[in-house]
Amino acid sequence: MFQLDRRLLNDTIPVGRLGLSRLLLMNNRLWPWLILVPERPGVTELYQLSPADRACLIEELAVVAAHMAALFSPDKLNLGALGNLVPQLHLHVIARWRDDPAWPGPVWGCGRSESYADSEAQALVTRLGEALGVTVTKETK
Amino acid sequence: MFQLDRRLLNDTIPVGRLGLSRLLLMNNRLWPWLILVPERPGVTELYQLSPADRACLIEELAVVAAHMAALFSPDKLNLGALGNLVPQLHLHVIARWRDDPAWPGPVWGCGRSESYADSEAQALVTRLGEALGVTVTKETK
Repeated sequence: MFQLDRRLLNDTIPVGRLGLSRLLLMNNRLWPWLILVPERPGVTELYQLSPADRACLIEELAVVAAHMAALFSPDKLNLGALGNLVPQLHLHVIARWRDDPAWPGPVWGCGRSESYADSEAQALVTRLGEALGVTVTKETK
Repeated sequence: MFQLDRRLLNDTIPVGRLGLSRLLLMNNRLWPWLILVPERPGVTELYQLSPADRACLIEELAVVAAHMAALFSPDKLNLGALGNLVPQLHLHVIARWRDDPAWPGPVWGCGRSESYADSEAQALVTRLGEALGVTVTKETK
């Protein structure tokens, strides 16, 4: 059975479910930063997914990225699947600006983080959920 | 017409062509590091590709990643599409080890680089090309 990695659970705010992936908002208000986690147990690398799941994932990634671009008008989107700290396969979609605190470097490992206020996070989750047409998930940490 | 970004051209060694993407070896012997560049002019973001191209790209990415895993037995693969410095859409596939110079951080922006000797690069390109069954490209820088 699929279970979300505890670190991902702790570092994020649930947004909802896409067809294959759980959608999470990274709790770091320095960047609009979403994470997709394909709900497949035991998968750590992209090539371990079935071709059908990969086809689904790339479309979910594109839809999320296109909405991030439309909602936030970033200078660039950064996509990544690293997993050095959390092996469970998860994909980052991050809005970047030329004047953001890590530009032009990656945000991973830059050590800059600032939590959302609860109301701010909820407003953003609602906005994202409505734009993406996803069902909001509620999880107990 | 598609033209490979000059910085990508300068920083890499050509491996060959996949169905959609140009395959390049990053000229940094600290990590086995491949780059896929979809041969579509003017594309900077994944969502700008057609759904058919995306379906092709994710399979090319999976095949390259699976071969990297088989050839190098890394602890983890890192995938990324950043483009903060080179906007032309390109995807990194990097083999990572727990004792490598940037672990657990990302390799992008870590500032560690060591060029291949010519013979070493050519041996690796041949090995990769044979494993992936790609036609080796020759380019003039």
